[in-house]
Amino acid sequence: MARKKLRTKDQHIIRLASMVDGLGSILYEKADLLSYDCDGFTIHTALPKAVVFPENTEEVANIVKYCHEQGLPFLARGAGTGLSGGAIPLNQEVIISMVKMKKLLSVDLENRRAVVEPGFVNLKLTNSISDKGYYYAPDPSSQYCCTIGGNVAENAGGAHCLKYGVTTNHILGLEVVLPNGEIVEIGSNGVPDEPGYDLLGLLTGSEGTLGIVTKITVRILKNPEDKQTVLAYFDKIEDGSQAVSDIVSAGIVPAALEMMDKTAIEGVEAAAFPVGHPKDIEALLLIEVDGIAAGIGEQIEQILDVCRSRNVREVRAAKDEQERAAWWANRKTGFGAMGAISPDYLVQDGVIPRSKLPEVLQKIKKISDDSGLRIANIFHAGDGNLHPLVLFDARIPGETDKAMEAGSACLKVCADVGGTITGEHGVGIEKREEMRFVFKDEEIMAQTDIREVFNPDNLLNAGKLFPTPGRCAEVKKEMKEAAIS
Amino acid sequence: MARKKLRTKDQHIIRLASMVDGLGSILYEKADLLSYDCDGFTIHTALPKAVVFPENTEEVANIVKYCHEQGLPFLARGAGTGLSGGAIPLNQEVIISMVKMKKLLSVDLENRRAVVEPGFVNLKLTNSISDKGYYYAPDPSSQYCCTIGGNVAENAGGAHCLKYGVTTNHILGLEVVLPNGEIVEIGSNGVPDEPGYDLLGLLTGSEGTLGIVTKITVRILKNPEDKQTVLAYFDKIEDGSQAVSDIVSAGIVPAALEMMDKTAIEGVEAAAFPVGHPKDIEALLLIEVDGIAAGIGEQIEQILDVCRSRNVREVRAAKDEQERAAWWANRKTGFGAMGAISPDYLVQDGVIPRSKLPEVLQKIKKISDDSGLRIANIFHAGDGNLHPLVLFDARIPGETDKAMEAGSACLKVCADVGGTITGEHGVGIEKREEMRFVFKDEEIMAQTDIREVFNPDNLLNAGKLFPTPGRCAEVKKEMKEAAIS
Repeated sequence: MARKKLRTKDQHIIRLASMVDGLGSILYEKADLLSYDCDGFTIHTALPKAVVFPENTEEVANIVKYCHEQGLPFLARGAGTGLSGGAIPLNQEVIISMVKMKKLLSVDLENRRAVVEPGFVNLKLTNSISDKGYYYAPDPSSQYCCTIGGNVAENAGGAHCLKYGVTTNHILGLEVVLPNGEIVEIGSNGVPDEPGYDLLGLLTGSEGTLGIVTKITVRILKNPEDKQTVLAYFDKIEDGSQAVSDIVSAGIVPAALEMMDKTAIEGVEAAAFPVGHPKDIEALLLIEVDGIAAGIGEQIEQILDVCRSRNVREVRAAKDEQERAAWWANRKTGFGAMGAISPDYLVQDGVIPRSKLPEVLQKIKKISDDSGLRIANIFHAGDGNLHPLVLFDARIPGETDKAMEAGSACLKVCADVGGTITGEHGVGIEKREEMRFVFKDEEIMAQTDIREVFNPDNLLNAGKLFPTPGRCAEVKKEMKEAAIS
Repeated sequence: MARKKLRTKDQHIIRLASMVDGLGSILYEKADLLSYDCDGFTIHTALPKAVVFPENTEEVANIVKYCHEQGLPFLARGAGTGLSGGAIPLNQEVIISMVKMKKLLSVDLENRRAVVEPGFVNLKLTNSISDKGYYYAPDPSSQYCCTIGGNVAENAGGAHCLKYGVTTNHILGLEVVLPNGEIVEIGSNGVPDEPGYDLLGLLTGSEGTLGIVTKITVRILKNPEDKQTVLAYFDKIEDGSQAVSDIVSAGIVPAALEMMDKTAIEGVEAAAFPVGHPKDIEALLLIEVDGIAAGIGEQIEQILDVCRSRNVREVRAAKDEQERAAWWANRKTGFGAMGAISPDYLVQDGVIPRSKLPEVLQKIKKISDDSGLRIANIFHAGDGNLHPLVLFDARIPGETDKAMEAGSACLKVCADVGGTITGEHGVGIEKREEMRFVFKDEEIMAQTDIREVFNPDNLLNAGKLFPTPGRCAEVKKEMKEAAIS
């Protein structure tokens, strides 16, 4: 029993410890809490009050009820791989870690669905069903360690979401502990159009601000009969961008259509999985098609033709599965690879209409030139989801701020061409203020009003997703006063 | 000017008339209002206070502001083809008809999207872009006359939604007039994971209870390179059901996978588009595959093999486009065709896990036997979306009630096997009470709380989508009192 060993007189810790079981089910000493002071967004840190590790829904509900009654701020955390700071305890929260709730509860191949606990790791689902010919589609680059609960909170994407959609397109049902401790079931487990309001869509991607997911029914897909990957090198980034547009215009829907620029290639080639990409090209495309075997060859030919018509330096299909896997390992570890060429980096996550790609890449280059910071681009070109990686050195005074400004400027460019500020990483604490690039005060208020329905005391993950009150709160106050007077 | 000809002293009518322009922009006399006393759900009727026909967003906003200030109930109406009564003016509403807002505002082929006004007819969109090789995917059977605004309200489906998803999967952005007259933009026009809460998903399918849509950005798709349709006749309905499961299990995702039973076949063969289906079979499957031409043949062969392995009486692919079109016309007018074999019919719309198909069809047959009413089944078998059509004669006293009871019993069967009460027709007034089959009081309250955020006075389309207060209101009152005390 954890509580036998407690070395604290804090009554909250003692009570919380009594709700979970076993050694290691609660952390409360500073040395232990330090591991939980941030997630994948490392620029901002804050210590939680405690970290508890429930093992089932009832334990989660009891912890939440207690926090609710006592007015203790709390939040849920998965693997902590989030890139926008959604799991950072800004208000000394009690962190409810979901890592012990990691069971695969059931697989129903006939109806194409599986039920998992939130701490179940993304890639494990595909690994558990691949021998039967099935897989789970959303594939964030962190899929080997991120949890499906975290994926639901952030509505995670991935390279293959161009064809298959992001997490919200694969979630069929949720069990959720509401901020008052009540347990509800949401979704109709696979019905195309659920009756009533789309609460399933509302909860998915709400970044842990409306409830804590304790059980998830996901859609699983049959493996495509065949897949093939093409790699193309371009001397000019404009040619690469144009090839992206041409491929999609030709009516091909690739499973993935990824792009890397020169700086990104320098990074991945200096890191753990180099594959020999030339360092003097301006753009690389990685294009995967999948489906019925008989249709693949024709699509590959079309893709090769498009690339050739756009002055490609070299283009070819992977010669075998081993080469294909090497190309993907090189791409999927791309963010981390920046560590090989820069002490620090900041990942951004903007989205633009595909047709604006050349214009936006030019503007990002200008931001890089103006700031004096290198910016690498690795991204999901097919759906216009850019990931500018701002390279900087946090040891140089002022450079972190400069990097954040450059990152924000990139998002402004995306918003200004009719795009938006996040494609798959979420808003968290990182992009709260940038929400104003895309939402009017009234639109933000409509959202905070919805948060109030679920989370009236704002004890659950406060300070995330929305701009700090300021102007918004004023408008609301004025409106309330006007209504009263 | 309409107001010159007004023959009323009702100040509300006079004011409303001043907000719209031209002859025929307002109706207020009983003879005119009679056409608006119901929609496609004809069992319940009620007269509106007036019908106004705005021509742009500002006029809609002015009308809504006026209703809001004056406490006048109001609702929006498209083509009036809804099947669950969502546009019926239960509270003597001012109906805001969207039929004059019917422009195709823009088409952006490069980024695959189009912007339409809400009164734009569904099929016209495909017709407007088909010469360039594009189409709009959601295809409700009423697509030749229903409006895209109505499709958004109901999250409409259609035969081809098995592969391509329902309306919510094709809506990229909305302009909405909120119930207080404020105009907001929702959605990020094609971003996979919009920042903030998914208001676009929330509004889509909210059955006209959260706001009035005045502009819609939709996704458009490239025409598939090829398509082919297979027709299969089965002597036993179990064999047909099993073939459905087998096709999906084989990893084929047909564009459409439709089923009709014996009674349904009797109807369609007696109506406007007979194609010579045998009347002694128990089940017919209509299966369409589309995609890259090279892949189609292989899938058709697989489908033919599956059907043969399940004792099909006859199975073959359409010999040409003309035959394919005839099969689809026969299927798509199936509901109306029931008029040829029954004075009245009630369409139901339940959803079940695909694996429960044989069990549920058995239970529906028992409901038919017990009630003495014939029930025809025409449905989207591939995604488990059933449409039991209860045949009755409203002239026989008590038979309408008996039909409604039988319909409700069918939905109960669906809910009990883990399905739900509507797949694409919405809840409206028809299935308000059946919401209790799938939602607990707390879950319904979470939804009515959301309605309150947008629609606090409940002037917009009140009395739809949720059960009549009763138990729910009591629970809420108890909870509020508990919170105060």
